[in-house]
Amino acid sequence: MSFTPDARIDLDRYWSTIQRSAEIGQGREGGLARLTLTDSDREMRDQFVAWCEAAGLAVRVDEMGTIYGRREGTEPGLPPILIGSHLDTQINGGRFDGIAGVLAGLEVVRTLNDLGHVTKRPIVVVDWTNEEGARFSPPMIASGVFVGRYTADWAHALISDDGARFGDELERIGYKGEMPCGAAPGDVDAYFELHIEQGPILDAEKRQVGVVTGGYPSYGIRVRFDGETAHTGPTPMDLRHNALIAGARFLTAVDDIGWDFAVMDGKATGSRLAAWPNKPGILSETAQCVADVRHPDPITAKVMAEKMRRAAHEAGARAGCSVTIEDEWAWGGDIFDHGMVDAIRAEAVRQGWNWRDIEAQAGHDAYHMAMRFPSAMIFTPCKGGITHNNNESCTPGDLVAGVNMLLHVAVARADR
Amino acid sequence: MSFTPDARIDLDRYWSTIQRSAEIGQGREGGLARLTLTDSDREMRDQFVAWCEAAGLAVRVDEMGTIYGRREGTEPGLPPILIGSHLDTQINGGRFDGIAGVLAGLEVVRTLNDLGHVTKRPIVVVDWTNEEGARFSPPMIASGVFVGRYTADWAHALISDDGARFGDELERIGYKGEMPCGAAPGDVDAYFELHIEQGPILDAEKRQVGVVTGGYPSYGIRVRFDGETAHTGPTPMDLRHNALIAGARFLTAVDDIGWDFAVMDGKATGSRLAAWPNKPGILSETAQCVADVRHPDPITAKVMAEKMRRAAHEAGARAGCSVTIEDEWAWGGDIFDHGMVDAIRAEAVRQGWNWRDIEAQAGHDAYHMAMRFPSAMIFTPCKGGITHNNNESCTPGDLVAGVNMLLHVAVARADR
Repeated sequence: MSFTPDARIDLDRYWSTIQRSAEIGQGREGGLARLTLTDSDREMRDQFVAWCEAAGLAVRVDEMGTIYGRREGTEPGLPPILIGSHLDTQINGGRFDGIAGVLAGLEVVRTLNDLGHVTKRPIVVVDWTNEEGARFSPPMIASGVFVGRYTADWAHALISDDGARFGDELERIGYKGEMPCGAAPGDVDAYFELHIEQGPILDAEKRQVGVVTGGYPSYGIRVRFDGETAHTGPTPMDLRHNALIAGARFLTAVDDIGWDFAVMDGKATGSRLAAWPNKPGILSETAQCVADVRHPDPITAKVMAEKMRRAAHEAGARAGCSVTIEDEWAWGGDIFDHGMVDAIRAEAVRQGWNWRDIEAQAGHDAYHMAMRFPSAMIFTPCKGGITHNNNESCTPGDLVAGVNMLLHVAVARADR
Repeated sequence: MSFTPDARIDLDRYWSTIQRSAEIGQGREGGLARLTLTDSDREMRDQFVAWCEAAGLAVRVDEMGTIYGRREGTEPGLPPILIGSHLDTQINGGRFDGIAGVLAGLEVVRTLNDLGHVTKRPIVVVDWTNEEGARFSPPMIASGVFVGRYTADWAHALISDDGARFGDELERIGYKGEMPCGAAPGDVDAYFELHIEQGPILDAEKRQVGVVTGGYPSYGIRVRFDGETAHTGPTPMDLRHNALIAGARFLTAVDDIGWDFAVMDGKATGSRLAAWPNKPGILSETAQCVADVRHPDPITAKVMAEKMRRAAHEAGARAGCSVTIEDEWAWGGDIFDHGMVDAIRAEAVRQGWNWRDIEAQAGHDAYHMAMRFPSAMIFTPCKGGITHNNNESCTPGDLVAGVNMLLHVAVARADR
């Protein structure tokens, strides 16, 4: 046996790992609720570590709980190839989001084991902690620490809505490693991530795979409105400082921005409004909102972001509340390594799949990795683009192209 | 000593009870956070019971935790006069809202004790459980059970946002009595409630007291929007069912209705929006909203209520969510006993205060009592109308007129 151009992964074996994952942390019918650093997250991590060890990988866990399964290369001193994604899910999540990518990395090394092929550079399969941000916000935290965008101390101090501390939960489930989370430029040769599209395009066009050329430029903001409590009844309209209304007006305006740009595939989303006290009988003193805009055109995305910021100030003024834009993020654009994207595209042609170029619209750990290391993504179709929902659905046929392309581009890179 | 037309309450003693209450369950500076059925509520109840017993009142507690302190009349078989309000507060509440009314009742019986006057009918001082609805929604629960609007079983099963059960908390603090909560028509001769205005009118006009002629007609609704979770990123605008946005659009429209009618003193309030999952990265599946409208003119109030209901359906349609108007309430109007209102007005004239007729704009236990028994209210000024806020403020001078009027109208009624 050797690694030849017609080498293929074992689709049944790959699918069986996804099926096993689908047993852990079940949510609504067909879906998962495997929130980060919960008991079911631990159970999945234990399963993943067992698989890695059975495949002969050297497993390490860093201070952020990120799990690395390393398959040594013939030249162990060379920077490794990383293949990763995440095993945590949303509260009403699916069975494939993130999971398909981590287990694709596992399947790549299992296939190499079958073929007796040792790559020149090491290959490391990675499970990033808390990609979803469904329990501890923001999302993509461990990959953010890895590239130096956040510090581990900052991440450890995060508090969930249920009052738990990130660092404590990491220790509780036994996945707070000693190894620092982070790497200097040059420490990683390349990062590959396979992911379901989480959008309807590939499925609608009956494409088998997407070559990700970049990410929709996206801008997000967290906004805090400060008002004052008062009685809901007698307080005249012009004496009110109801932060809940400031938040409602802001999110309404954000949604309007999304519709204004929808014809060119723009999107604007209000995803969170947490007011206090948020009770009948009393006007709310504070409201915290999260909103974002996305558009394929970078200039238009910036215009949308400016409109969103202005909407926050207008909403606050209208409701008599002060406005603080607490945090913001900017994602996407032409961030992926052109050489790696070209190699993926060439591999799609060589293997003869029905493929297309596509831009990512969701956030991914690859966005963080691309800040410091050559990175690229492969998208697989998913039914109707449904995701962050228990009805998220893929078949083995949806995944076969992406994971076989991943096999060849990763090995080619590792043997370089 | 005897009860003469110039009898007056002991203002210093009355004020001292308010000051003592202000020590229990302190919140932000100057304010109280004495939520119903908490430990601080128990402490205040214990203090109130001790005062009642020291004043020779027979104390009973009903199955809703309502405390009755009865001063027997010369004809114990006659229906009693009730004087009441509530000792619980909002999470950012003041020292006077409700409290001034309960302790005014206590001061009335203490004054009668001083004067050695026994009224013909009994006088009962009442502390109603959970007027505020700040921990268990809706507000005014015990008075609602008393008049048969709610059942005690229904109330006991209510769950707070912190997951506590009303009935369990009532037992925990030791205030779940054996006596049924309720009374048939005729069981209560009359109900008086003194309350701070919770609005700016008396203070702005430098009035010493308000004769409450009725309540602003008010309509409230709870609305539930049902959508579907999906990813915030790739999901096209026209495929979204974001319940959070339905809620935001609804509350924005409600606020607009308030402004449209503000010139004639109309108000419309969005007070609650609780969405799920309400997290960055995922569109929300459900949102629950509470909103209400109030207007001095009954027809206009109905028009506003219809606009509010229509706004709920429009917001749901715009956001692709189904709409359920879960519950609604209607308050206010010409609900108080005309004879009692006339007696209060005549007493204001007789005592020579600077008074005016005024309509209540907040909800009060008296609204429930008026459904079954002759009822009336007296309003005292409060600084700037600030309430449901730790800066709520009254002076002894703000209270003196109201409590002395209460003394005379209650005794006149009890001696009738």
